Amino acid sequence: MILLEENMIYEGKAKKVYSTTDPNKIIIYYKDDATAFNSLKKGVIQNKGILNKEITTIIFEYLNSNGINTHLIENINDRAQICTKVDIIPLEVIVRNVVAGSMAKLFMMQEGQVLSEAVIEICYKKDELADPMINDFHAVSLGFATKEDLDNMYEQTKKINTLLKDFFDKIGIILVDFKIEFGKDHQGNIILADEISPDCCRLWDKETKKKLDKDRFRRDLGDIEDAYQEVLKRIKGMTL
Amino acid sequence: MILLEENMIYEGKAKKVYSTTDPNKIIIYYKDDATAFNSLKKGVIQNKGILNKEITTIIFEYLNSNGINTHLIENINDRAQICTKVDIIPLEVIVRNVVAGSMAKLFMMQEGQVLSEAVIEICYKKDELADPMINDFHAVSLGFATKEDLDNMYEQTKKINTLLKDFFDKIGIILVDFKIEFGKDHQGNIILADEISPDCCRLWDKETKKKLDKDRFRRDLGDIEDAYQEVLKRIKGMTL
Repeated sequence: MILLEENMIYEGKAKKVYSTTDPNKIIIYYKDDATAFNSLKKGVIQNKGILNKEITTIIFEYLNSNGINTHLIENINDRAQICTKVDIIPLEVIVRNVVAGSMAKLFMMQEGQVLSEAVIEICYKKDELADPMINDFHAVSLGFATKEDLDNMYEQTKKINTLLKDFFDKIGIILVDFKIEFGKDHQGNIILADEISPDCCRLWDKETKKKLDKDRFRRDLGDIEDAYQEVLKRIKGMTL
Repeated sequence: MILLEENMIYEGKAKKVYSTTDPNKIIIYYKDDATAFNSLKKGVIQNKGILNKEITTIIFEYLNSNGINTHLIENINDRAQICTKVDIIPLEVIVRNVVAGSMAKLFMMQEGQVLSEAVIEICYKKDELADPMINDFHAVSLGFATKEDLDNMYEQTKKINTLLKDFFDKIGIILVDFKIEFGKDHQGNIILADEISPDCCRLWDKETKKKLDKDRFRRDLGDIEDAYQEVLKRIKGMTL
């Protein structure tokens, strides 16, 4: 299948989205482009698109087989997958099991403190505002989601976290935190969209605490592609 | 009654707190000191302490007569009042009926947009962190309040907002937003503490939209004491 530029309906920081002949399906193409700090930092991680598409596929299939509906339909090549077309809910849902990143900064806490219960945050997806953290009242009042949508998303998010913590634990990785996005399909169902990959998770090796995620890019730690490869290798080892 | 410095147990930006011979009671003394932007801006508003003590008294008595428990017991002079001693819950509860201030900034919105439903925010009271806005998960996870405490506070806050909107509407004032604090008394009851005054409300004249609150100090608009006097005058006119 050839992806024609004229069919591209959206280009994001890490992915391109193409229309298909079926109005309820899109094709998502994973790029190697990497950005951080609201695009202030830009770069390319060799083969990232291939690795993230593969990692997302395995994780989404795992979640799907455990009762979580995702937008993934099928892969068409090593960088592209057919997905259900959804209206993305403009909220990034962040789940934290261990303090790191912006939460460490917000509370001036050391990274690495384990949270007794997962902390969920929602951020308004808006580049011009640098994706600010908001609360449920903002989301409802400004029309980003209804209270029922939020309840649905929180419930799914908690299930996803339980499943993913277990998934990564089995391959010697601590799921520190991750970001997911939801969308509504043409029937109004809220399903998991976007991707789950080292681009949007913090993944630490359980023994060495080595970072196996995009923090290697954000913080110039090197070995970025190797880290993503390592995650895929372990995931494949488990699922074989 | 003489307030002895040796009995002062806490000095805040706008108030001093003194112990009394009764371990369950404190004396709160209202100062004229004004601060803004996490104390980056400092000044004095003549007679502010007297005006805010008076305004808080009338508002707290009004709330109390409408089923809201407050810490206020009785006034002892024009700047001091005896209050129930509480353990302050380290959260500022902000209620917004109209977009202004930090919410306008966060979403790059014009001030003045009426919100269809009140937006409630909680901020962690911590000067070193500049009182950051947080969410319920943070508050519970970091031990600032339990889920039950938060539910209780939200419920009281909504009632207080309904009562106060009505109260100010009757004297030609729009209650744009306000900040309140709660504390636990020695029996564990969550009651309204701190103050409700033009220091912690945005109050706009209904006709002229003139600001009758601390924004006159924050934004160097002049006539600060006059504005506070005007609020007290109208409140007294209503309650006479």
